[in-house]
Amino acid sequence: MISKLISEIKKKNAPIVVGLDPQMSFIPSFLLKKSISERGESLEAAADAIYEYNKGLIDAIYDLAPAVKPQIAMYEQFGVPGVEAYKKTVDLAHEKGLVVIGDIKRGDIGSTSEAYAIGHIGEITVGTRSFAPFNEDIVTVNPYLGSDGVKPFIDVCNKYDKGIFVLVKTSNPSSGEFQDQTIGDKTLYETVAEKVVEWGGMSMDGNYSNVGAVVGATYPEMGIMLRKLMPKAYILVPGYGAQGGKGSDLKGFFNEDGLGAIVNSSRGIIAAYKNEKYASFGEEGYAEAARQATVDMIKDITESVQ
Amino acid sequence: MISKLISEIKKKNAPIVVGLDPQMSFIPSFLLKKSISERGESLEAAADAIYEYNKGLIDAIYDLAPAVKPQIAMYEQFGVPGVEAYKKTVDLAHEKGLVVIGDIKRGDIGSTSEAYAIGHIGEITVGTRSFAPFNEDIVTVNPYLGSDGVKPFIDVCNKYDKGIFVLVKTSNPSSGEFQDQTIGDKTLYETVAEKVVEWGGMSMDGNYSNVGAVVGATYPEMGIMLRKLMPKAYILVPGYGAQGGKGSDLKGFFNEDGLGAIVNSSRGIIAAYKNEKYASFGEEGYAEAARQATVDMIKDITESVQ
Repeated sequence: MISKLISEIKKKNAPIVVGLDPQMSFIPSFLLKKSISERGESLEAAADAIYEYNKGLIDAIYDLAPAVKPQIAMYEQFGVPGVEAYKKTVDLAHEKGLVVIGDIKRGDIGSTSEAYAIGHIGEITVGTRSFAPFNEDIVTVNPYLGSDGVKPFIDVCNKYDKGIFVLVKTSNPSSGEFQDQTIGDKTLYETVAEKVVEWGGMSMDGNYSNVGAVVGATYPEMGIMLRKLMPKAYILVPGYGAQGGKGSDLKGFFNEDGLGAIVNSSRGIIAAYKNEKYASFGEEGYAEAARQATVDMIKDITESVQ
Repeated sequence: MISKLISEIKKKNAPIVVGLDPQMSFIPSFLLKKSISERGESLEAAADAIYEYNKGLIDAIYDLAPAVKPQIAMYEQFGVPGVEAYKKTVDLAHEKGLVVIGDIKRGDIGSTSEAYAIGHIGEITVGTRSFAPFNEDIVTVNPYLGSDGVKPFIDVCNKYDKGIFVLVKTSNPSSGEFQDQTIGDKTLYETVAEKVVEWGGMSMDGNYSNVGAVVGATYPEMGIMLRKLMPKAYILVPGYGAQGGKGSDLKGFFNEDGLGAIVNSSRGIIAAYKNEKYASFGEEGYAEAARQATVDMIKDITESVQ
């Protein structure tokens, strides 16, 4: 799968991913009004509005960006209808040729991790038929439970040509509370990174592995070090834009081949119309604003990285 | 919420929780046949079979056990229909007076953790109406992202009188890879446990906190130490039975007041009919087998703890 993602990144000359994190406050009010008028004040109305919002965004950016990253929490908060909107978003993104990175941060013990892996990137059999229940291409995985929580995902990656990004150093302010603690002569995130290298060897796909890592743009120095420590792991970089990461911070996340990292922006793109810079698009022009913000982000990143 | 759980544990004299982890191989074939005959070979048929299976189990154990713990991965693996079966299971358990511990192991950065917290133990507003999308009473939380991933859950606990169990030392064989690493003069799981104490102080409910901890029955010596380190945290103890934890291992997880721990068994109860000891119940008698296994588990635990 990572070779497919790389091919799409090269084709569009855009090492970026658009985060589809439809917080209620981002959704233009005309979309919510419309869905409430059709479905009443209900979780279903919210889910419909989310899907319509995403549809506008995907239509506006699919020819520019190689991938989208829906954050499942923002759908799950609307219960079963929200999860259904998540699944419909995955399917729509696929129809438009986008790689879908499901930001699910799952992780559990063996058979339970296997169930998550099957549900999200694998297939399950009912009677004689097989189904791909959520059908993302790549998902994010939490490593706290160790190898037997991660390996079931790798087995499923190998069986269905899929990928994972393992949380190594997250972008949030308190990520250091545990991740930066020193174990012997290295930190916990380095210890996890070494495991990512080991796990990565189990699922190579060309020069890179289907087992990548999440490292926040907000920690550029750690990015440089982790880039060297995990030379064959693709790095998913959240935290660009709204969380404070800048294009100029990102060079160190890339390898000398110009590959090795994919930078996410969520609110900076999908809520661009709320940003002064793009305010002229107005609420009705939220999708065009997102398109312009995507163009600008690609320019910022590619110029910074070269 | 923890005071409600304690009151139910005392009322039933049973510091146990029944894990509703409906792996496909546990579901009696007559249930799946029936749902396939009604819905065809589909994710919906699997979801119906799961719900019917759970219904039999809940009816058989609700007067014995204070709580159930559905493992959401086992539902999520069947996609949207599976998640719907999860939600219906939560509702049915509530109708029968059970406390519901959603084993969701979520954890993310601030606003995203908040979305998970709202969706699972809080309420969300659409227009002028509020909804409790999943409505569990307590959920499990992964701490790898640090305080700003956990605090949104605590805020929601305080607002809606709910609880969380934070993963400290999990029951699986490779849990030590990261959790047992030594940071200065203590391990990572002790470092997390100290945070659980700090977080716990933010949501006290009587003598115990709404912020509890997960510590596996498979590590009884660590249980003794963690019990002392987190005196006011309730401990959710997985790993009893099928994973190898014995009643005699469990005394150290409890405080001298006889409280402080709740022991989970999943397959040992819900798939008891597959165990030689309960084979005479047969597949059709899976619920009665589960009832007998629950009676036996309560006896084993209460005798071992006294």
